[in-house]
Amino acid sequence: SSKPSTGGEATCKIVAAEHLHADGRVQVEWSSGDRSEYPWVWLRDNCQCPQCFHPVSLSRTFKLKELDLKLKPTNTLIEDGELRVSWSDGHESRHGSSWLQERAFEKQPRAKRTLVHRVPRQYWEASLPSVDWTRLLQEDAMLLQWLLLVEQYGLVLVHGVPKHSGCVKLLAERVAFIKRTHYGRDFSVIAKPNPSNVSYSNNALALHLDLPYYFYKPGVQLIHFVHQYEGEGGDSLVSDALQVAEHMRQHVPHLFHLLTTVPVDWVDHATEDDREYFKTLKMPILCLEEDRQTIWRVNFSQPQRDSFFSECPLDKVCQWYEALKTFHDLLYDPRFCRTFKMESGSLMTLDNLRVTHGRVGYPDGGEVKRHVEGCYIDWDEMLSRRRVLQRRLLHQTEQ
Amino acid sequence: SSKPSTGGEATCKIVAAEHLHADGRVQVEWSSGDRSEYPWVWLRDNCQCPQCFHPVSLSRTFKLKELDLKLKPTNTLIEDGELRVSWSDGHESRHGSSWLQERAFEKQPRAKRTLVHRVPRQYWEASLPSVDWTRLLQEDAMLLQWLLLVEQYGLVLVHGVPKHSGCVKLLAERVAFIKRTHYGRDFSVIAKPNPSNVSYSNNALALHLDLPYYFYKPGVQLIHFVHQYEGEGGDSLVSDALQVAEHMRQHVPHLFHLLTTVPVDWVDHATEDDREYFKTLKMPILCLEEDRQTIWRVNFSQPQRDSFFSECPLDKVCQWYEALKTFHDLLYDPRFCRTFKMESGSLMTLDNLRVTHGRVGYPDGGEVKRHVEGCYIDWDEMLSRRRVLQRRLLHQTEQ
Repeated sequence: SSKPSTGGEATCKIVAAEHLHADGRVQVEWSSGDRSEYPWVWLRDNCQCPQCFHPVSLSRTFKLKELDLKLKPTNTLIEDGELRVSWSDGHESRHGSSWLQERAFEKQPRAKRTLVHRVPRQYWEASLPSVDWTRLLQEDAMLLQWLLLVEQYGLVLVHGVPKHSGCVKLLAERVAFIKRTHYGRDFSVIAKPNPSNVSYSNNALALHLDLPYYFYKPGVQLIHFVHQYEGEGGDSLVSDALQVAEHMRQHVPHLFHLLTTVPVDWVDHATEDDREYFKTLKMPILCLEEDRQTIWRVNFSQPQRDSFFSECPLDKVCQWYEALKTFHDLLYDPRFCRTFKMESGSLMTLDNLRVTHGRVGYPDGGEVKRHVEGCYIDWDEMLSRRRVLQRRLLHQTEQ
Repeated sequence: SSKPSTGGEATCKIVAAEHLHADGRVQVEWSSGDRSEYPWVWLRDNCQCPQCFHPVSLSRTFKLKELDLKLKPTNTLIEDGELRVSWSDGHESRHGSSWLQERAFEKQPRAKRTLVHRVPRQYWEASLPSVDWTRLLQEDAMLLQWLLLVEQYGLVLVHGVPKHSGCVKLLAERVAFIKRTHYGRDFSVIAKPNPSNVSYSNNALALHLDLPYYFYKPGVQLIHFVHQYEGEGGDSLVSDALQVAEHMRQHVPHLFHLLTTVPVDWVDHATEDDREYFKTLKMPILCLEEDRQTIWRVNFSQPQRDSFFSECPLDKVCQWYEALKTFHDLLYDPRFCRTFKMESGSLMTLDNLRVTHGRVGYPDGGEVKRHVEGCYIDWDEMLSRRRVLQRRLLHQTEQ
């Protein structure tokens, strides 16, 4: 997977270079006639020669303590499509045309790189995305498609899954590995008496996202319907909290603002394998990125919202509840909520930072058989796997 | 660990209650003469009766769809130190004095609750915190002390550790469980030829924090010196990036600002157990909480800073490098950096969101023996364990 540090197939070549001494940059002219500027200090820091960059680990070995902020070019050459600069610190750096082009400080190459980081999210269409289990496990192209669909839509159904235990683990390990929580690695949800968690019952489950009290809340949830309840009940509900939040931003901005700014105390007291856990975390319902625009995480779970509400000013409590209730009601609005019954041998993939899920109750009784198995995978591993497959299958050579 | 939902030992009792209809709140008067106000909607939402609150899972079962934002009190009683309110929705809620006191919307009870969430951080004193391995493993009080020290100082040394493999796993499982990364669960650092990661060599390692390209970057690192190199070299360096950052905030605020606002591309290309990983993440060197004041995470690693610098405006690059270099130089400043040689049979605990670590190089050669073992634990699990132990050992009854 390693590529030569310089050279490569550039769509256009460097034809000239001129130093802008006042700005401390070199201006490169491309065969297309376009120009790009690169700061000297950045070029030196990112010299790709084997002394400065380790070609196996693909990482910088040039030391920060050796970086001279006041360095200047002493000689500049263009040879074999490479920019070769000799510096006042005695080093000569070489940078190929394609390497420089990919890293240009202009809008277009940056937008391309952004897609390597994250693929844009989309709202659901009439039919929900779905893939076939056997192809998902056997074909890398289908694995890539599933990864992209989860990233884009936050919900992907998988059909044709075997009706036995172990499938969620198999799929998680096809991606990377399971995200362990205090509830274990993979877990079964079967009605059991005196449950320590409300999920472990046959009751209806209101729309929610899992484990809001985890700072490192699991990113993606796999839910395998090993055996679905065959009578009436046990249906699934899903609703896109991102779309609902954007709806609120547009129509009730003052309530949206409260959901993005008032921290909520989330809590869980659990005992698993004789060990107690006491998780608690303060975080708003809707978490915005540093741009204060993009929603990156939604927290919503009625049972795990603490009675402590320790950062909400007293005079905002009533309106915050109005915002909460509005959000709740919209999640159930038919414009956003889908209800369907998963069949035995099917699997649901959910973005646990975005898509709420719930369950219609089903009757209690000795004859009831419903077995659901689940586990989590973190987004770090999902995105990593998607990038590796894109590079391999789509011949994207970028590192 | 469950406690009665109402009643309990209150330091003072409710003596009177009066409704403030314009604000939708009840004002409670305590035996001390102080008063506290509670919004009606919050009281109803947090009714602690067995219909509304599940006493085993300690979680709310009252449904949001049943919450009437316009509910009003129809009757109010104080009996046995309990506030009993009948509501216009037909329900009667009961709340005990101590339960209400702990959740009062005033500053003092809230400050107390904040300590349950996080304990304040402190800078290092002349001698670094250390504990004894045997006591750490055998005494819960010592485990609690170690957990608190890691939370406060971000660095704790452990002495008297056995000189064999498996100790980091043992300690991680005494807390909860290991945080797995693409480098595995626990890992050995021994010099090996042609390393895929610069750590796996005998070279000096500059001060850094691990895995900056992980969105869910491991919270705490355990490093066990199973066998230290006995000649000259192999010393450890540690430096508190939080203290250095605060120093910069005070003395060079314009550079501090750049480190907190300019996202850096972090990257790792790894192959472990025949599987490729391609992690990349944009995040500043210094990450601020929503208050734009508190530093919650530091990212710093020269090898894993990408040559893509895809969100830095061209005209800020040079000054950003000045900020980076200043930060780097201060990390090595004797006011902040400590150097010492860990002995065989000792262990270092590091807050991987805060404290940088490095290594002095040691000679290569067939006779060299140095064996270090490491693993990670997430802060979610560290804090959970601390809270459970505080509740058990310090008789803190709060949920």
